[in-house]
Amino acid sequence: MRCLKILVLQIALLCLAVAPASAMNIEVTNFKLANGMEVVVIPDHRAPVVTHMVWYRVGSADEVSGKSGLAHFLEHLMFKGTTKNPFGVFDRLIDINGGEGNAFTTRDYTAYFQRIASDRLGLMMELEADRMQNLVLTDENVLPELDVVREERRERTENDPSALLAEQIDAAMYTAHPYGKPVIGWMSEVAKLTREDALAFYKAHYTPANAILIVAGDAQPEQVRALAEKYYGVLKNTFTPMPRLRTPEPAPIAARRVIMTDPRASTPIFQRSYLGPTYSTTENRDAYALDLLADILGSGTQSRLYKSLVIDQKIAAQAAAWYAGDALDNGSFGVYAAPNPGVELDKVEAAVDAILADILKNGVTQKELDRVRDKSIAEQVYTLDDQATLARIAGAGVATGLDARAVFSRDVEMLKVSLDDIREAAAKVIRINRSVTGILSPERSPQN
Amino acid sequence: MRCLKILVLQIALLCLAVAPASAMNIEVTNFKLANGMEVVVIPDHRAPVVTHMVWYRVGSADEVSGKSGLAHFLEHLMFKGTTKNPFGVFDRLIDINGGEGNAFTTRDYTAYFQRIASDRLGLMMELEADRMQNLVLTDENVLPELDVVREERRERTENDPSALLAEQIDAAMYTAHPYGKPVIGWMSEVAKLTREDALAFYKAHYTPANAILIVAGDAQPEQVRALAEKYYGVLKNTFTPMPRLRTPEPAPIAARRVIMTDPRASTPIFQRSYLGPTYSTTENRDAYALDLLADILGSGTQSRLYKSLVIDQKIAAQAAAWYAGDALDNGSFGVYAAPNPGVELDKVEAAVDAILADILKNGVTQKELDRVRDKSIAEQVYTLDDQATLARIAGAGVATGLDARAVFSRDVEMLKVSLDDIREAAAKVIRINRSVTGILSPERSPQN
Repeated sequence: MRCLKILVLQIALLCLAVAPASAMNIEVTNFKLANGMEVVVIPDHRAPVVTHMVWYRVGSADEVSGKSGLAHFLEHLMFKGTTKNPFGVFDRLIDINGGEGNAFTTRDYTAYFQRIASDRLGLMMELEADRMQNLVLTDENVLPELDVVREERRERTENDPSALLAEQIDAAMYTAHPYGKPVIGWMSEVAKLTREDALAFYKAHYTPANAILIVAGDAQPEQVRALAEKYYGVLKNTFTPMPRLRTPEPAPIAARRVIMTDPRASTPIFQRSYLGPTYSTTENRDAYALDLLADILGSGTQSRLYKSLVIDQKIAAQAAAWYAGDALDNGSFGVYAAPNPGVELDKVEAAVDAILADILKNGVTQKELDRVRDKSIAEQVYTLDDQATLARIAGAGVATGLDARAVFSRDVEMLKVSLDDIREAAAKVIRINRSVTGILSPERSPQN
Repeated sequence: MRCLKILVLQIALLCLAVAPASAMNIEVTNFKLANGMEVVVIPDHRAPVVTHMVWYRVGSADEVSGKSGLAHFLEHLMFKGTTKNPFGVFDRLIDINGGEGNAFTTRDYTAYFQRIASDRLGLMMELEADRMQNLVLTDENVLPELDVVREERRERTENDPSALLAEQIDAAMYTAHPYGKPVIGWMSEVAKLTREDALAFYKAHYTPANAILIVAGDAQPEQVRALAEKYYGVLKNTFTPMPRLRTPEPAPIAARRVIMTDPRASTPIFQRSYLGPTYSTTENRDAYALDLLADILGSGTQSRLYKSLVIDQKIAAQAAAWYAGDALDNGSFGVYAAPNPGVELDKVEAAVDAILADILKNGVTQKELDRVRDKSIAEQVYTLDDQATLARIAGAGVATGLDARAVFSRDVEMLKVSLDDIREAAAKVIRINRSVTGILSPERSPQN
């Protein structure tokens, strides 16, 4: 059985999801088909392969209440076949042609991709266009998939205390906005999803005008345009996509803490997330500044958190920071530390707090800024030297409302980031009332 | 302008929302009209007045996501008039006839009531039946009411740090279930409610089969039946109410804390809520046991919390406990303390924790149980010696799925509650993973 997966937001990927146009010279061609489907082409001719992706502007944050997990469940069901291509045909055709494919769902989008020999691009489009409108769902093929998803939740979440902690932190962070619920859904709600739910969701969100085609690899823009018009351009929209107006999260007014004890936790964990802006929600340089600040604070052995907690004070085995800024509505800035054996979590938290307080008071140094900026650009060059990554970054950008070209020229803005920008962004975001602190520990308290 | 209000769940009322049939001898007649509307009659002939209430089985927990506050907003709009009785007529007729009326919304129901001379009961039914189906909403009468609701939220919530804290505790308590959002709604969502939203909600939830008529006072059951058939019985259902299946709250797995600093807070507050059962969700005696345990712990100067924290240790100015068990899906058991000036909240919390730990380990004494049970029954006799309270308790019970008679004979079950029942109920509910601890303090932390 195909291994479907939820895209776990990789901290590393998020921090590096930018490429200076100057350094990378990434060519981006984008246009719209007459039916509204957006197309982005990123040529890469080093090998005769293409990455073909179709992204839908719908994710778990677009589900109605009580139906959590529906976007991801539908992602699974998209492999159940159509009248023309019954169950198994899609996968078999990819296999026969030496390709590979998969799909993933996040809060903001659902994406399907294949990597295959470039002369098979038309075939991929034909198959993907077919299932955009002709999916056949029956109770027989839908209901057993619920067990698959539940098992997936068991494996990835229920059996992983740190995943459970992350889920609880999100739930505490968001009081109104749907980012508070897990992409895979709450078990009780997943268990009750039906064929009708899936079909209604499919019909409400899957249409060319709500889709983005990304082709990266050995293909010319004009050739992609011709194929896209042939396969996707002929599809009629079954509805007009509405603006994605999720309810705004009210301004946070209380520091929150989530304290989890789980005997399966191999090591105690302290982590804290601050509600932050995203590349999509800011007009200024806050997102860039937070990306760089996260690196200064917690990326690598020269970072402030690592140097202080792990090397100097020797109280932590790990320490890190991150900024997750690639989302439609809300991002998060986070810090993390795992204490050394015998060290109280309180002590680690106090040490992190002291470092944050120092940043808020004194800012960072130009030397730090220069160092992480250079490193970031170097890493981007490396990360983006991969067709699938190019396609994914372009898709994630466009699906969250950014310009296809902008996501590959973030370096231009990043070079403009000043010490004051970082100080200002930190002052806006690193506020205890915007935060949820998560504590995971294997020890159970008496009342627990 | 009419003063509409949300029913603030009164702790006192909740604890006392029971009347021993033996002590009170409350007669309850109930029946259904052919269209499905339930009717409950509670005669009380001491004065020639009646309390007339219509309850709809819809509250804020039935709103879809992004539309918080809609149930309460519609409650306001129900006073905007119908074709037959334009704006103002309803109120004027009540005034002219020496009556008074109001309305309230909770998570589970929306209720409208009038108290008036008993010979005007037919008139009240005529007016209430009319607006059940013939409400006229225009942008002109709907949109200005949004300002009224926003002002209400400002006054009752935004300007009251303890109300804000309660809201944040609920938000942290519920990860999936809609009890996590405030009845009045989040400001950002309230601001966007429209005439169309209100009308759709009205059409989806206001119909005889989804309504309950409660008449308490100077009226005979047969007379009420005749009037109810004349005014409400002629209404046709415009839809069939669906079962109220809110998504179940996942089993809690983490202790949560909400730390609020607000310079307007006159005194620091420690409070903690534990997710608990309700009278509607338990088949056993847990709800009764929790009601009594709350009294033992925190009702009056002889309660454990008060005696220990206020009298003996002298660390708190106030200490209390409560059980809110009258809801459709989830209840809460809570403890509260306000430290004396100069006493750290930590110290107060530790003292409360010690008392809870003792209860969990050793239970309560028969003397304590007898004392609070006697007191509870005596208070019920007093509380229920009021027509409006009788009507309200009957309505709240039926609207949350209980039998109309059962809510007035809780004493029978309460008398059966044993020390073991209390021990078992406490062990199920007083678990730190089921809790949200709220801290309110006027001092701001450096990062805040």
